[in-house]
Amino acid sequence: MHQSPSSSAASPAPAPAPRDTAPRALPHRTLAILSIGDELTLGQTLDTNGKWLSARFAEAGVITVERCTVPDDLDAQVQALQRLATKADVIVCSGGLGPTKDDLTREALARAMDDTLVEDPIALAQIEAWYMARGRTMGPLNRLQALRPSRAVALANPHGTAPGIAGRVQHADVFCVPGPPKEMMPMIESQVLPRLMYDQSRSVRTRTLHCFGLAESDLAQRLGSLMDRSRNPLVGTTASGGIISCRLRYEGPGPAAHADALLDETAREIRGIAGEYVFSEGAATLPGVLLEALRTRGHTLATCESCTAGMLAAMLTDVPGSSAAYAGGLVTYSNSLKVQLAGVDAKLLAEGGPGAVSSEVARELALGTLRRLASTHALSITGIAGPGGAVPAAAGRPAKPVGLVCIGLASIDGEASAGAPACEVRTFAFGGDRATIREWASKSAMAMLWQRLIGRRAPLLREVVAEVAG
Amino acid sequence: MHQSPSSSAASPAPAPAPRDTAPRALPHRTLAILSIGDELTLGQTLDTNGKWLSARFAEAGVITVERCTVPDDLDAQVQALQRLATKADVIVCSGGLGPTKDDLTREALARAMDDTLVEDPIALAQIEAWYMARGRTMGPLNRLQALRPSRAVALANPHGTAPGIAGRVQHADVFCVPGPPKEMMPMIESQVLPRLMYDQSRSVRTRTLHCFGLAESDLAQRLGSLMDRSRNPLVGTTASGGIISCRLRYEGPGPAAHADALLDETAREIRGIAGEYVFSEGAATLPGVLLEALRTRGHTLATCESCTAGMLAAMLTDVPGSSAAYAGGLVTYSNSLKVQLAGVDAKLLAEGGPGAVSSEVARELALGTLRRLASTHALSITGIAGPGGAVPAAAGRPAKPVGLVCIGLASIDGEASAGAPACEVRTFAFGGDRATIREWASKSAMAMLWQRLIGRRAPLLREVVAEVAG
Repeated sequence: MHQSPSSSAASPAPAPAPRDTAPRALPHRTLAILSIGDELTLGQTLDTNGKWLSARFAEAGVITVERCTVPDDLDAQVQALQRLATKADVIVCSGGLGPTKDDLTREALARAMDDTLVEDPIALAQIEAWYMARGRTMGPLNRLQALRPSRAVALANPHGTAPGIAGRVQHADVFCVPGPPKEMMPMIESQVLPRLMYDQSRSVRTRTLHCFGLAESDLAQRLGSLMDRSRNPLVGTTASGGIISCRLRYEGPGPAAHADALLDETAREIRGIAGEYVFSEGAATLPGVLLEALRTRGHTLATCESCTAGMLAAMLTDVPGSSAAYAGGLVTYSNSLKVQLAGVDAKLLAEGGPGAVSSEVARELALGTLRRLASTHALSITGIAGPGGAVPAAAGRPAKPVGLVCIGLASIDGEASAGAPACEVRTFAFGGDRATIREWASKSAMAMLWQRLIGRRAPLLREVVAEVAG
Repeated sequence: MHQSPSSSAASPAPAPAPRDTAPRALPHRTLAILSIGDELTLGQTLDTNGKWLSARFAEAGVITVERCTVPDDLDAQVQALQRLATKADVIVCSGGLGPTKDDLTREALARAMDDTLVEDPIALAQIEAWYMARGRTMGPLNRLQALRPSRAVALANPHGTAPGIAGRVQHADVFCVPGPPKEMMPMIESQVLPRLMYDQSRSVRTRTLHCFGLAESDLAQRLGSLMDRSRNPLVGTTASGGIISCRLRYEGPGPAAHADALLDETAREIRGIAGEYVFSEGAATLPGVLLEALRTRGHTLATCESCTAGMLAAMLTDVPGSSAAYAGGLVTYSNSLKVQLAGVDAKLLAEGGPGAVSSEVARELALGTLRRLASTHALSITGIAGPGGAVPAAAGRPAKPVGLVCIGLASIDGEASAGAPACEVRTFAFGGDRATIREWASKSAMAMLWQRLIGRRAPLLREVVAEVAG
């Protein structure tokens, strides 16, 4: 399945031609991924790079034929590179580019290419500059990171000290990239994907609509025949952390504009079917969309978190420029801080009251925060994230299971009459572990505010009781 | 590297002997993992089985020599089984045992064994019973799941409809298990691991020390010859999100107690070299270690976050039971909330003052939070997370680049004289993107408090100015 050799690879030298002076004659269609590291084969680290690489290259029309993981062992790495070179047009090799003795990828690539290592002066200068920018001096070990096979090229790494390497083994283009995702992903985007050859007579175009607040199976049922596997554009869904991503992919003859028009039409159909849950197209995130919607309205938001304890605030402020709409908040993890910081009536928390996880307390947390922090909207979250902490049923009070979360939204946004705040509380029964419950609670709070801003209230997934009050 | 054949495999038949009638003469030492599925190679599903299997088998002394992932493609599966059989004593093949057309593992194993498929009556009865117990009837497709190669045996699956299969390809014992972790894990525990032969004369034992606050290359330089690849126990390092994990591994003759004694000795050497940065052994996380250290001292912690805006609080409360030591905190993202909620002197934030990102403001945020939230310790974080927001130099004030973060720690923990709070501020110049700067700031704040609790103050990575005041 590998491509025929590029023109200059027909030179008499037995070694493969230098990557960048011998452009391929045929497009890249198949990918093999090689992950390197004892921490992977000993099961100490979860490899998330393989999934991301397979998905990203598939979007670009390059399909993964094999993923392979080997330990920090030179022979195993060399053998894997040579074997995978017979199976795929492109090999991405991640990891093993660090400065220590167990980082063997540079040497393995040189052996697989039947080449020797040389020091790359530009890569060396970039590593030195990386340290200088941080007020540090490059250590002698880091100098090793500037090595590359003589017939390969170094790929700059603005996010770390390990440069990448582009070489060729047999007829496969090999890209060695650092293992940390924050260094690997930008290098793939800016230096690997632009180096690939694509088939110009055909188009592969993709689009993604992001939804929150309904189950993947519910969305699939609503989409019906739009998800037929014979359809083009093909529609698929993927769920991750409660976000359902609806992936549209056109692959076929014709220019990109033709493909885009077909994608537009399918996207319109999906919005017609599930628009109240579709919060963005493309890369925009739920907090990003929400903050932008607040900013354009001149609104501000404050938060008051108990069981999520800062997670919602941290998600919002993960977005650069969030200070335009987000002022700050309270982390009222203990009951006494709920009273002291947010002004909750202590009687609600005392014996005989509804307790900390109740719509009454969620309402007071939201209203108290709105008033004290003087924002347009205030979101409050109080719940039981588990694994312990469930409250058994008592006289006049139902049991409170792990996963029960009450979310309050107080607003003074003009829709409320006479300047009095409006307040809505929704109650959820989330499943999963502690981290999942906290993540879903934070995202559901954002979805509640987002629905208020677009004026389309709809039930959210795992919502069990809906209460609305003025 | 594969084992010599077991006695009954010396029979004249060219096909491998039936798995369960031909016990191995030699122990199983090496594992290869084959993961099957288009959802994996298209990047739609994250494979967590590989990590779990590698870790679980390593505990049992069986080391992963390769992990391989291939699509739902019969030829690719057969080739992978035959190739991996030359590399490892055991192959675990997960996935592809479902009832649909793209589930090809049964057929692939039969071809790799040069065998034919037969229906296993016991497996069939178990599948029928599984449906009956749920008040449903077995569909015709599920009947396919009772097939196995004639010289293999079926493994019961009490957690799903797909039985496993144990067979042999060349000299490797092959165990096909279902893909879903909830079915795979119990089958490995109860039916695969008990079937392996163990070498009682050798041990494989691992240990991990986690460090924070120094660079991987700095640690490697300190460790020196401890990281020699010929050493046993072998020492390797891995960096992830600022945490440097120092992996120790003994593999060799002798019982487990001998291996553990050698690991103890190496761990002691490492603690002697870099103990002020080693915060845990094994699975304990930085927030987990910190909260436990606070809890055993009867101390409490409150937080006040500007640029991290809840991330530190969320990391702390990610630990179940964190409420024993963590009360809550403030998210003072805007300047006005720094004054209103934490009591910072407004003059510090006004023109002519040191500004929001300064050691003075970090100090007031920490002291104000300690006082108002009545905790033993208060951590404050104020900084420039970027990408915008850098402050140019002005009269009497140096420039404030992206990545500049001031962290305050106020404590009233008995070490301070006469009940007056102590306060320490450290200033950092972090690199990387917004998310990285926030993550490092949150972790550095925890490391500051952790060093105070263990009484070993040492400079932390990217710390640029150290100030201590009473």
